Amino acid sequence: MKNIKVGLIGMGRIGKIHFDNLKNQIEHVEVLAISDPFFVKDVGVPNLSPEALIQHPDIDAVIICSPTDTHADYISLCAQAGKHIFCEKPHDLSIGRVLETLKEVKGSGVNLMLGFNRRFDPNFQKIRSLVQEGEIGDVHLLKITSRDPAPPSLEYLKSSGGMFLDMTIHDFDMARFIMGKEVVEVFAVAGAFASEDVRKAGDIDTAVITLKYEDGTMAVIDNSRKAIYGYDQRLEIFGSKGMAKVDNNKPDTHVLYNQHGAHGALPLNFFMERYTMSYQIEMQKFIQALSEGGAMPISGIDGLKAMMIALAAQKSVEKNRPVFISEISEDKVGSVYSEQITP
Amino acid sequence: MKNIKVGLIGMGRIGKIHFDNLKNQIEHVEVLAISDPFFVKDVGVPNLSPEALIQHPDIDAVIICSPTDTHADYISLCAQAGKHIFCEKPHDLSIGRVLETLKEVKGSGVNLMLGFNRRFDPNFQKIRSLVQEGEIGDVHLLKITSRDPAPPSLEYLKSSGGMFLDMTIHDFDMARFIMGKEVVEVFAVAGAFASEDVRKAGDIDTAVITLKYEDGTMAVIDNSRKAIYGYDQRLEIFGSKGMAKVDNNKPDTHVLYNQHGAHGALPLNFFMERYTMSYQIEMQKFIQALSEGGAMPISGIDGLKAMMIALAAQKSVEKNRPVFISEISEDKVGSVYSEQITP
Amino acid sequence: MKNIKVGLIGMGRIGKIHFDNLKNQIEHVEVLAISDPFFVKDVGVPNLSPEALIQHPDIDAVIICSPTDTHADYISLCAQAGKHIFCEKPHDLSIGRVLETLKEVKGSGVNLMLGFNRRFDPNFQKIRSLVQEGEIGDVHLLKITSRDPAPPSLEYLKSSGGMFLDMTIHDFDMARFIMGKEVVEVFAVAGAFASEDVRKAGDIDTAVITLKYEDGTMAVIDNSRKAIYGYDQRLEIFGSKGMAKVDNNKPDTHVLYNQHGAHGALPLNFFMERYTMSYQIEMQKFIQALSEGGAMPISGIDGLKAMMIALAAQKSVEKNRPVFISEISEDKVGSVYSEQITP
Amino acid sequence: MKNIKVGLIGMGRIGKIHFDNLKNQIEHVEVLAISDPFFVKDVGVPNLSPEALIQHPDIDAVIICSPTDTHADYISLCAQAGKHIFCEKPHDLSIGRVLETLKEVKGSGVNLMLGFNRRFDPNFQKIRSLVQEGEIGDVHLLKITSRDPAPPSLEYLKSSGGMFLDMTIHDFDMARFIMGKEVVEVFAVAGAFASEDVRKAGDIDTAVITLKYEDGTMAVIDNSRKAIYGYDQRLEIFGSKGMAKVDNNKPDTHVLYNQHGAHGALPLNFFMERYTMSYQIEMQKFIQALSEGGAMPISGIDGLKAMMIALAAQKSVEKNRPVFISEISEDKVGSVYSEQITP
Repeated sequence: MKNIKVGLIGMGRIGKIHFDNLKNQIEHVEVLAISDPFFVKDVGVPNLSPEALIQHPDIDAVIICSPTDTHADYISLCAQAGKHIFCEKPHDLSIGRVLETLKEVKGSGVNLMLGFNRRFDPNFQKIRSLVQEGEIGDVHLLKITSRDPAPPSLEYLKSSGGMFLDMTIHDFDMARFIMGKEVVEVFAVAGAFASEDVRKAGDIDTAVITLKYEDGTMAVIDNSRKAIYGYDQRLEIFGSKGMAKVDNNKPDTHVLYNQHGAHGALPLNFFMERYTMSYQIEMQKFIQALSEGGAMPISGIDGLKAMMIALAAQKSVEKNRPVFISEISEDKVGSVYSEQITP
Repeated sequence: MKNIKVGLIGMGRIGKIHFDNLKNQIEHVEVLAISDPFFVKDVGVPNLSPEALIQHPDIDAVIICSPTDTHADYISLCAQAGKHIFCEKPHDLSIGRVLETLKEVKGSGVNLMLGFNRRFDPNFQKIRSLVQEGEIGDVHLLKITSRDPAPPSLEYLKSSGGMFLDMTIHDFDMARFIMGKEVVEVFAVAGAFASEDVRKAGDIDTAVITLKYEDGTMAVIDNSRKAIYGYDQRLEIFGSKGMAKVDNNKPDTHVLYNQHGAHGALPLNFFMERYTMSYQIEMQKFIQALSEGGAMPISGIDGLKAMMIALAAQKSVEKNRPVFISEISEDKVGSVYSEQITP
Repeated sequence: MKNIKVGLIGMGRIGKIHFDNLKNQIEHVEVLAISDPFFVKDVGVPNLSPEALIQHPDIDAVIICSPTDTHADYISLCAQAGKHIFCEKPHDLSIGRVLETLKEVKGSGVNLMLGFNRRFDPNFQKIRSLVQEGEIGDVHLLKITSRDPAPPSLEYLKSSGGMFLDMTIHDFDMARFIMGKEVVEVFAVAGAFASEDVRKAGDIDTAVITLKYEDGTMAVIDNSRKAIYGYDQRLEIFGSKGMAKVDNNKPDTHVLYNQHGAHGALPLNFFMERYTMSYQIEMQKFIQALSEGGAMPISGIDGLKAMMIALAAQKSVEKNRPVFISEISEDKVGSVYSEQITP
Repeated sequence: MKNIKVGLIGMGRIGKIHFDNLKNQIEHVEVLAISDPFFVKDVGVPNLSPEALIQHPDIDAVIICSPTDTHADYISLCAQAGKHIFCEKPHDLSIGRVLETLKEVKGSGVNLMLGFNRRFDPNFQKIRSLVQEGEIGDVHLLKITSRDPAPPSLEYLKSSGGMFLDMTIHDFDMARFIMGKEVVEVFAVAGAFASEDVRKAGDIDTAVITLKYEDGTMAVIDNSRKAIYGYDQRLEIFGSKGMAKVDNNKPDTHVLYNQHGAHGALPLNFFMERYTMSYQIEMQKFIQALSEGGAMPISGIDGLKAMMIALAAQKSVEKNRPVFISEISEDKVGSVYSEQITP
């Protein structure tokens, strides 16, 4: 297996997680450079401009962890430079821009993986395995609970694209991943109950989204931007042969019994603690796919499809009616859609 | 406190539960007669015709556990005879008939309690208490999982009024009870995935129903007629100050660890085991309200409102759009509605 | 099956439980009389003197729930009168007196059942079944945790016979029941850490007792008279094919998650709530054995053997060394022992 | 804070864990060399002889992970060379040899830390915190369950020093760590029930050990060399204000409900998975104590005291009586004891 040489753009919270994993946990990879104008610490590799990093002749692949509004540009540059791409979600907030860059990626022949790290979480992997091994039988219903401990800042909210594109998009991807089939229709109810900032931003902080799959089976997602008890990430699957569910991970297993009751720990808080393992495995799988050859574990089309569900959910709230995914392709994707997303 | 003298019509599964509770567990009550032409065992009191039982001069209150299509007639007879009424759900499958008999009941001044026994389950009572004591803060979302172990017979299904009126009606009542506010809009998706009999009956066996309350907060119910692992009855409440959930009751607490995994007991199966305590407390509360005076714990209007949510859910599936409860009153209830349900 | 006619001596806490179960829950039985000079409520049957009750010509069996120091006398009278006996534990605090009355019982041919109600608890029954069905394989170790919520009054403590004879005796019986083999050696360490009253009474309130069985396998029991969080009754079994454990029963299954942690209910408190079901099944089994014929589920010898383990534990604390059960028979039982306990 | 330069002797299973943690997870440390004649992989630092590594002029501290019978020699050499020492447990199987080297260490002024990694496990740390913060009140009883998934090889068993010195020694250290007070008396019962190899080695595989502390409070440990369901590491603490317990860690949180029951994952198996975090924190704490100054988190005396409890347990099984720790000092430690272990 050959060693993969990578550069990493963006050394914010998630960029640092990926950097540490690439340095310490993952084999067959070498980090040649980083790029972040605001990151001054010496991590033993040069800190280049994004363009210089992407053009670096020894770099095989680029990890894009910079702000969302730069993703599409860097993807384009990578495609032109013949570099493989790992891009944090979301690809871009404009579906037109996503389609353009997917076209460039396809044309250039480079590989692109979208960073839906939760697919690699051991709990969700276990549920996926149970489904694939037939332990659930015919699957009738998937339930996802996904709640953040606190909403982001007002500033972040304003440029986030809204809760569905920013936060629920992980759950929309999970809904496709676990069930292994496509969503065709979406109904969402939502409100801004938990946060003044969210209201100011004209966004929502609480939602229940019902998904229908092509065969009539269903998923239901509930979200909150503000679960005061921490980061709540649970999932349940129900079918003809059984039901399985996974709970939150906790920092320890203690239960204290005193005269007031039985008391245990809250869920691990926040995504960096909860999804430590999933970030690590995700990057391993990316490097491994490049090193050994083989398909990307999560494609650009996966990113596109989650985005279309999110847009359908937004439209459903606006119109207060179920929205077909096909409406999104008509509205936003148009004629390029069919040629584009065909594998 | 005075002793209440009751007669009981219908000695099927639930009738017998009530009879045993009235005989053995509840104070200040005396069973003077039963009525069931197919029940031949001697239980120490005469087995009269329904009419004779209702007319019995010493009887204060009648417990109606006979088939659904007889409920409204017996309620009418009781109202005319000045007897208080405990009636198993549903009141009737025709909302017009329900309204007529509610009018008679109101006119006669007798008390009517509907048998939504689950309100008295210690688990759900605990959640209701946490909400009322403010432990959840502002409540944003209620989630109810309610799954039966197996669908009823095809014959039963045909006359059941459909899953929403027959089974989910308990959950619709629970959604009102826990939240303590009214549902204004309903969206339901459903399918017949689990049972050939259900398909033959033109009914559904799996559903996700989203409810919106008057203040924009939400509830989501998921149902199945066939949970192969047993009777699954869980509930979760989420709000600004916390989240609380209740799980199924189990016959024992064992966990067996062997080389294949950790193995525990399935939920108590079926409603007679799961809701033993709730049936007992329900009947205590009915007798106590009659004996000490005071309002019925669950009124006829409660039955009516759960029914209207069920009808809205049916319509939502038919039309594939959210349905306002007010549409049901326009469709089915008409002008009598407003005068009727005003307390 | 014939109906059994019983009288019940002692209408204290446990007497009332048995009375209610006999009246309401158990078939093929009739209560003809009670006996309790301090019990004035009319329960529909005459309140006789103990002697009159025992001599009552229609009574087949006597349920003895009076204070411990009367048990042996009433057992003797019952044996003389040819009445079957259910006696609450302990039989007597003097092993000599126990042996005398066991001899009388044996001579008279009446049946005697000791009230080790916990054998009928659904949790412990499940563990016993797993052992018997071979799910645990060769059993190596049994662990019992048994803690009371609060010590009894100083007055009670003084005449209780000490913690081992009063409280741990249930666990000693459980250790024989679950393992299905005999204890041959006992080592106990103990202290009075939790209660001033216990210290005043010269008793202990905390103990760890190690038991060795005839085949070298082991059990360990830990006790406290004062678990501030309630009545703690757990058990674990370990062997070559697996491990199984049972936890406490709780009044409800709620867990509340707020910013301070995850909070659930404490164990059911106290024995009347925790062992409701076991008292009921215990009495059913007694009546059934009399009605249908067949061996007593728990014999007088079972009571004797648990007592001998308790006495060995007391001696072990005094001498600070392991004590063989055979020492107890030499010390206290003497030559009558061997003839007596041979089945 | 200064950087600590270390060498590591022994690249077996645990040596590699420490090496990876030192390289990737811990700050202020540099690995200059390793020493292992059988380890051929290039890890980027020279592989020296133990003597050369210990004498290396730039090395501040030595991590000893070689076979037990080399520990004392390397500790001596380190003391002579003025190198700080981290030594895997056990220090040595001969208490005389332990005392000699502790004397040398004390004389030389170097620091010595013993590798009782479990003290740093987040679960056990939480229990220790609850005790220290007074949440348990006066502590009356500690319970430790510690079971291995399978016995080591016959060859290993023969030179292991027996189960108490090899395996239970971790639990003896835990019993001192959690309670924060000294054990004065030990009673152990044991057998070889689970493994033919253990019997051949003349060792035991199952034990219950009762410990008495200086104030009369108690601990009880149960051990097995062969828990077929995996690595079972649990702990419970009981006192005047409450009880707390910690359970095993599991690879995921799934529960699958099907017609056969509810099924979940087994504990993480084996120590490398279960104690990943504790190994990492342990080494951090060692490096931090050297880098910042301050006492070793676990001293050589801690190793000695756990060993004395193990020897008392062995003697207790042989003699079938409780054994005072002071007997061990008389037997094995003699007059050097008092001067040695005084801090």
